[in-house]
Amino acid sequence: MPSPKPRFKLQRNKKRERCFERGKLNELHLVKRIAGKIKNDSSVVCGIGDDAAVLRYTKDKYLLLTCDMLIEGVDFGLSAGPEAIGYKSLACSLSDIAAMGGLPKYALISLGLSKKCPERFLDRFYRGVNKLARQFKTNIVGGDLSSSSKIVVDVSVVGTVKKKKLALRSGASSGDIIFVSGLLGGSIYGRHLKFIPRIKEANYLVSNYRINAMMDISDGLSLDLYRLCSASRTGAVIYEDLIPLSCDAKSLDEALNMGEDFELLFTLSSGEARRLIKHRGKTFTAIGEMRERKYGIRLISKEGKDKALEPRGYQHF
Amino acid sequence: MPSPKPRFKLQRNKKRERCFERGKLNELHLVKRIAGKIKNDSSVVCGIGDDAAVLRYTKDKYLLLTCDMLIEGVDFGLSAGPEAIGYKSLACSLSDIAAMGGLPKYALISLGLSKKCPERFLDRFYRGVNKLARQFKTNIVGGDLSSSSKIVVDVSVVGTVKKKKLALRSGASSGDIIFVSGLLGGSIYGRHLKFIPRIKEANYLVSNYRINAMMDISDGLSLDLYRLCSASRTGAVIYEDLIPLSCDAKSLDEALNMGEDFELLFTLSSGEARRLIKHRGKTFTAIGEMRERKYGIRLISKEGKDKALEPRGYQHF
Repeated sequence: MPSPKPRFKLQRNKKRERCFERGKLNELHLVKRIAGKIKNDSSVVCGIGDDAAVLRYTKDKYLLLTCDMLIEGVDFGLSAGPEAIGYKSLACSLSDIAAMGGLPKYALISLGLSKKCPERFLDRFYRGVNKLARQFKTNIVGGDLSSSSKIVVDVSVVGTVKKKKLALRSGASSGDIIFVSGLLGGSIYGRHLKFIPRIKEANYLVSNYRINAMMDISDGLSLDLYRLCSASRTGAVIYEDLIPLSCDAKSLDEALNMGEDFELLFTLSSGEARRLIKHRGKTFTAIGEMRERKYGIRLISKEGKDKALEPRGYQHF
Repeated sequence: MPSPKPRFKLQRNKKRERCFERGKLNELHLVKRIAGKIKNDSSVVCGIGDDAAVLRYTKDKYLLLTCDMLIEGVDFGLSAGPEAIGYKSLACSLSDIAAMGGLPKYALISLGLSKKCPERFLDRFYRGVNKLARQFKTNIVGGDLSSSSKIVVDVSVVGTVKKKKLALRSGASSGDIIFVSGLLGGSIYGRHLKFIPRIKEANYLVSNYRINAMMDISDGLSLDLYRLCSASRTGAVIYEDLIPLSCDAKSLDEALNMGEDFELLFTLSSGEARRLIKHRGKTFTAIGEMRERKYGIRLISKEGKDKALEPRGYQHF
């Protein structure tokens, strides 16, 4: 189908165009750029920019919509095996629903596969998908099959959330205590293929506490904390000593910047925080405090030294 | 991230595994294979297999969910330009919503782009998307950005349909008259990048007639009629003479088998059909009649000769 002489070249043209370059905040910049071009009607409570879109639905519930694209060689290698690829593809999107305080309901799976791919790949891929879908009562209601030289999976999920339980990235205030679920770092060595999306934990949180802001940590704590602060127009301070390191993590740096953890990052007022620590001290860890925006985002080292925390997590561009 | 020694090889293994092979009905077979692995709850009225999934929603409406993945070199060439790629990506998914008799509401766009892709690509891509989104009042509420060597776009759309207006592929009966909208064939020479999804036409049909079965013609009339017959457990006869040829079509064969037309294919009882022909003779064309399953699917040539119509449209596998 492609005609022999492309009119539009996908090549870098230094003089005329700004190009995607691997940089600190490029992806955030691109998302903002896209969001600036979109105009939505009043049924859209929250569009581009959070973990999932929030849409008017019933009297007491919102509809949540999210999608995640995974590409061979970027988000998984073939060595992962079809079950793990299927499992992770759904898990990433479910993690986005969790991050809003919601419950998943329906999923669509678009799959690009090589023509040489054995039919049994599909069986094993869906075995991985179904394992997770059953666990979190998610109906797989459709999808699309395409031929592609590299495996591409895009999973869209529709969920719901009670209006009172909705958690956005933008609700944090200076003075809030910052928490994470689970352990961070080293997920890339294998855990990223079998992590459990924090649907239950998030649901416990929004049902029992007033969560001010929440998101999932998909691209690394430093980058995702930056995103949360950006959405809430705040600064933050976190303490090296408090960051709960996974035994897979080879260094603190991995816990801060490596990505693929799919844990929850959230904030509570100090009163609510005390209550949470008392009741569920081991599941969730307080790692710092939200500050005024002008404070910036800072990391206090084990020696008590204070430095700016650069957002250095995983970025596609 | 991929580890050096894949445990699972994406290679053909004749002895042990049946492979994807370009064949008559392979894609249909794969979709059935996937559908067989999925168990859904009672909120799913219609899952995998139609143009969109149908889900319980309000007292008088269903929710519709669909997605379409488009890949560079398969569904478009770079020569198309970013606007056309954006336009077509949304148009394909809107066509699926039209085929159910529904109206689109929300869209998510996942986009895999080369790291070398100029930022202006995004501006132009979204110009194409927005042109269509505004026309059909579709909110673009989110998406995902990934790095990919070839451009990959996956668009998910959420729509609604009044319960009474829902049109499935499976409702046709022997004796129904078969119609198509618009003109068929040769879309691949350019029209596929700028077609108008038949939302208005489909909405007119389901609002004013009792449509027994409907779908969009995305992979060619012969293959899509086969799919409609398959879902309705019927046969069909169509007449060469009646097929409305586009001026782009170089032969009847292109109108039957080439794909990318994105017109509507639907059936009405003979009484309803007479009414439609009387009122909207030029927009919709009667091309044949549904038959009993055992009759098969047959084409009557201009000379009055009768032969089996092979489903030979576009298939990814």
